[in-house]
Amino acid sequence: MAAGACHDGPVTTTDHGPAAPVAATALRPLRLRAVRLDGSFLGDLQASNATVSIPKGAEHLEQQWDNYRTVAKGVTDTEYHGPNYEDGEAYKWLEAVAWEAARGDDPRLQEWLESRTALIAAAQDEDGYLGTFVQSGRRAERYGQLDFDHEIFNMGAMIQSAVAQYRATGRTALLEVARRAADHLHRTFGTGPGQREGFCGHPVAELALVELYRTTGEQRYLDQAKYFVDAHGRSILAPGNPQRAAYLSDRIPVRETTAPEGHAVRAIYLAAGATDVAIESGDTELLGALETQWQNMVGTKMYVNGGLGSRWDGESFGNPYELPSDVAYGETCAAVASVQWSWRLLLATGSPRYADLIEWQLYNAVLPGVSLDRSKYFYVNALQVRADADDTDSRAPGNGRQPWFGTSCCPTNLMRTFASLQHYVATGTDDGLQLHQYAAGTVSAHGLELEISTDYPVSGRVVITVVGPSDTSISLRIPAWADGAEVRVRDEVIPGAAGSYLRLDRVWEAGEHIVLDLPMTPRLVHGHPRVDGIRGSVAICRGPLLYAVEQVDQPSGVLVDDLVLTDPRLTEVPTGGLPNITGSGAVHRLPENLYAATPAGLADVVPITALAYYQWANREVGPMKVWLPYQPAVSSVDARTTS
Amino acid sequence: MAAGACHDGPVTTTDHGPAAPVAATALRPLRLRAVRLDGSFLGDLQASNATVSIPKGAEHLEQQWDNYRTVAKGVTDTEYHGPNYEDGEAYKWLEAVAWEAARGDDPRLQEWLESRTALIAAAQDEDGYLGTFVQSGRRAERYGQLDFDHEIFNMGAMIQSAVAQYRATGRTALLEVARRAADHLHRTFGTGPGQREGFCGHPVAELALVELYRTTGEQRYLDQAKYFVDAHGRSILAPGNPQRAAYLSDRIPVRETTAPEGHAVRAIYLAAGATDVAIESGDTELLGALETQWQNMVGTKMYVNGGLGSRWDGESFGNPYELPSDVAYGETCAAVASVQWSWRLLLATGSPRYADLIEWQLYNAVLPGVSLDRSKYFYVNALQVRADADDTDSRAPGNGRQPWFGTSCCPTNLMRTFASLQHYVATGTDDGLQLHQYAAGTVSAHGLELEISTDYPVSGRVVITVVGPSDTSISLRIPAWADGAEVRVRDEVIPGAAGSYLRLDRVWEAGEHIVLDLPMTPRLVHGHPRVDGIRGSVAICRGPLLYAVEQVDQPSGVLVDDLVLTDPRLTEVPTGGLPNITGSGAVHRLPENLYAATPAGLADVVPITALAYYQWANREVGPMKVWLPYQPAVSSVDARTTS
Repeated sequence: MAAGACHDGPVTTTDHGPAAPVAATALRPLRLRAVRLDGSFLGDLQASNATVSIPKGAEHLEQQWDNYRTVAKGVTDTEYHGPNYEDGEAYKWLEAVAWEAARGDDPRLQEWLESRTALIAAAQDEDGYLGTFVQSGRRAERYGQLDFDHEIFNMGAMIQSAVAQYRATGRTALLEVARRAADHLHRTFGTGPGQREGFCGHPVAELALVELYRTTGEQRYLDQAKYFVDAHGRSILAPGNPQRAAYLSDRIPVRETTAPEGHAVRAIYLAAGATDVAIESGDTELLGALETQWQNMVGTKMYVNGGLGSRWDGESFGNPYELPSDVAYGETCAAVASVQWSWRLLLATGSPRYADLIEWQLYNAVLPGVSLDRSKYFYVNALQVRADADDTDSRAPGNGRQPWFGTSCCPTNLMRTFASLQHYVATGTDDGLQLHQYAAGTVSAHGLELEISTDYPVSGRVVITVVGPSDTSISLRIPAWADGAEVRVRDEVIPGAAGSYLRLDRVWEAGEHIVLDLPMTPRLVHGHPRVDGIRGSVAICRGPLLYAVEQVDQPSGVLVDDLVLTDPRLTEVPTGGLPNITGSGAVHRLPENLYAATPAGLADVVPITALAYYQWANREVGPMKVWLPYQPAVSSVDARTTS
Repeated sequence: MAAGACHDGPVTTTDHGPAAPVAATALRPLRLRAVRLDGSFLGDLQASNATVSIPKGAEHLEQQWDNYRTVAKGVTDTEYHGPNYEDGEAYKWLEAVAWEAARGDDPRLQEWLESRTALIAAAQDEDGYLGTFVQSGRRAERYGQLDFDHEIFNMGAMIQSAVAQYRATGRTALLEVARRAADHLHRTFGTGPGQREGFCGHPVAELALVELYRTTGEQRYLDQAKYFVDAHGRSILAPGNPQRAAYLSDRIPVRETTAPEGHAVRAIYLAAGATDVAIESGDTELLGALETQWQNMVGTKMYVNGGLGSRWDGESFGNPYELPSDVAYGETCAAVASVQWSWRLLLATGSPRYADLIEWQLYNAVLPGVSLDRSKYFYVNALQVRADADDTDSRAPGNGRQPWFGTSCCPTNLMRTFASLQHYVATGTDDGLQLHQYAAGTVSAHGLELEISTDYPVSGRVVITVVGPSDTSISLRIPAWADGAEVRVRDEVIPGAAGSYLRLDRVWEAGEHIVLDLPMTPRLVHGHPRVDGIRGSVAICRGPLLYAVEQVDQPSGVLVDDLVLTDPRLTEVPTGGLPNITGSGAVHRLPENLYAATPAGLADVVPITALAYYQWANREVGPMKVWLPYQPAVSSVDARTTS
């Protein structure tokens, strides 16, 4: 189909969620409304995102829309609000509004979609270009700095937002803006006559263009995404500067990349976009390279909470095993991007490891990014804050969650993720349905109607009721951490192998129950010996949740900084919701000097109390630690080795 | 004395080294030529600095001098060579030339002093301003960005260089340039009419102006230094931006600073300059605050090698105990600056802890910055390089020492330090001489003539021969690490208390010997329990030297990354010079995943070989580690029985 040709209408219809492949995949996403989350943990999260986060986001972004108004009026001498990538953040918020509008009946949602879309459309240039920073008196600078100016990034986020709006509501106004922008990009960037080589220093358009291809059927959008993906790795954006090229994922071609490097969010968005390209192109070689890259990320470059990008310097991945726990960066957006990437790999391959990581990151790297009241955000996700921390950076976790950031990618990314959260719960195949995430609610797809009742992750029990008769098989993900999981069906107890899908092939009768019990006994986790920052330490986990010790829960006068866990036995402490966990410990006897001839000994025996990591910094912000030095008494070591 | 008045000639005469207080201090520096280093360790270092480093520096800086030629000719349309602070680096090199010229007879030294001084003088503006970056077509930008433009920094380095040239050679040409520049600064910055408030984002002028005061007797230069010191801490350079203010040492007034923060080199230069101000002003309150700051730096913010500034992000100090060993920054210049600061505190207070740190940093944080052949440099001083390190930053130690850097502060700082190294060996008081550093050579001061014979730090024996009769007391520094030190005088064996001066009050006869034996048995060092990155690990030290394990010395197939020391017994291995040190260890059995339910066990028993840390990366650049995981006793027995 030639560039600029009229389109034949959408290929995918409305009622789809994010990432809706048209090519064959191992697993198929369900329709957007096939899953409904009802109360309980994830449902409450989605609901409070709608009632608190999204409306507050509207307030925080209000000034940003003035940029569109200014551009639409042709005014060029007013001050620009925000950084040059702020269009993109506004589009993420509008995407959240769209997903929420598929479900919610708040009239504000429709008003926002309509009014903001009108503002965006009015600001678009005749040729399809849209980027209010450049359009505000900087038109001569168009595409002048592809590495930094985020112009294609902004249009990419707009395309994502438009696809979401169409899929969630059927509205086409923003989709038309998106098509014009995509056509503009297709005309502008490439190797053809009159085109220029290049891509955006901040990927996202790759993802967006594949989704637009899926929604419109226009092959050129897929071609353009493929061009952008393949253009990476030849230092086009940073000739002769390997350091800058690495930062921009432009040092090594995607197909040759064995582990992500450089700016974490950029690298993962690119990998996710490349996965979409591989899926729609049937490019198994590219898909294989991306699976390897994912495996090396998870196997050598990920914090215990699923946090990605260990370096503050360049917000980047470090070398393999470079995961110093006391100075973790772990940007919220990197975890959000990783969920998007893993979801695509899950669809493409059907491997449970991708759903495992989605769960782990959702609870321990995405969710910690927002306060329990859904009004404040972490940009950086620390695994430790010291008593004497005195950081001046607003991103530093020792300063607590913030209502907003000048760079608002993290809040808006969380909003669109939570608003579409139900989409990641289940998938289907020709003969079955797969449950990947456990949450109370309903699933209606593939001839099955399920009611799911659970307070997971408070307890590990998930009761699935098959509402009507069906012969569709049901597969349950048994998480890799869930040694000892069991499923009860018709008085049969079936052990679930951790890290696999337990497939139940039955002719289901109406009303029968499947009971999944996932083991929620607190457990200790040890780090790889090449990760120096956590040597001799353990992390406490329970089910899908990482735990942390926070100052406010410890005895008076006992600093989190000095705690040592001395006994492997852990006890749950009921709180009404998620239990806390206590253990026995001691405090270090502090030496006078930094370096000494003898190791520091232990002093007072103290109880240690841990809470779910995502809950920290919601009462007061003080010292916090995920990894606890671990010096079990010899007797308990013996006990452990004989158990 | 009014600004611009004719000066009455120098107060301090020539033949002084860097930092020559005119106010009373606990210890007095010796004259520049009072100490001569002859061969052996430090003498060889000084000699090879003169024969290799300084001449190569001349080549690397050649283009920079074109900036002066261009400015002197009034040309403004040519391209500027180097960053805006490159004047300052050239002055550091010229300072090294000056110190070397006090001793060496290489005719190139005199030629460099003469020709480069002429270039500098020719470039100076009528009003005393000198800064080739701004003078090259950017005069409208003069003092436009005090936080970043390094204009006062550059003039400060020139003043230091001029003082050195005068003290070392008696030449006054550059001193005259320095006086004009200092007068210009004095007229420009302050709170008086027609003046502007401000100081340089990169301190050094504070140090320089006090030294110029000492050399000229002009009170206004001390006043100006004092103004610059006191102007810090009110966010003048970064209003409303505490993060930037911290970076610039502008968040907290110097007098209220309890531990250094922000950019390490800047913070330490400022502290050193403030110490000079305190000394010359008799400001004991300021001096006390600086002693506290130093103590907290050493007690909470210093790597085991003496490296300062743990963060790559902003080249800055982190929070207390934030010293992740696997990602240390530790800029060479920060250690050089720290030596300057400690020297001033040593003079002011006479406390041996300052001389202890000078020694430790000299061997383990300054010296590692240059290759054994004196031709290549580390900007960043890693304590660990991993097998899979793949850094693209030229500063990353995994890329080895580099012949030069676009920012050449580290090489030139090393050159001026080594060229004046003998100056830090000894001091005097009214009734005594203090030996702080041990090196073969001669000392002639305070009625004493000493010949010092030693191969220290190869061995711990230092033989001091008193050449002529004298009744001057001799104090010997017994380093804090030197438990068991002994001094033999006239068949008397006197134990030396580690971390103190052993004062010998004798009427010395010509030719008698003092024999100092410092214990050189290899020892293990443990870290403070709040330093997470080194938990359960040890560092190997011997005398004043930190050791490291380097890949090239380990058995084939055994990665440094996986070594564990399993036995506290260490053995010296003769090499002809400094011995290597071996111990018994094992390698970690590597788990499949980053995080696991059980800790990693130990596999094969292997010998571990360590070399002096400063020697690493001189054969090949590969994995290296200072801190070794340490599992003695039970675990080591297990390891041995399974092998």
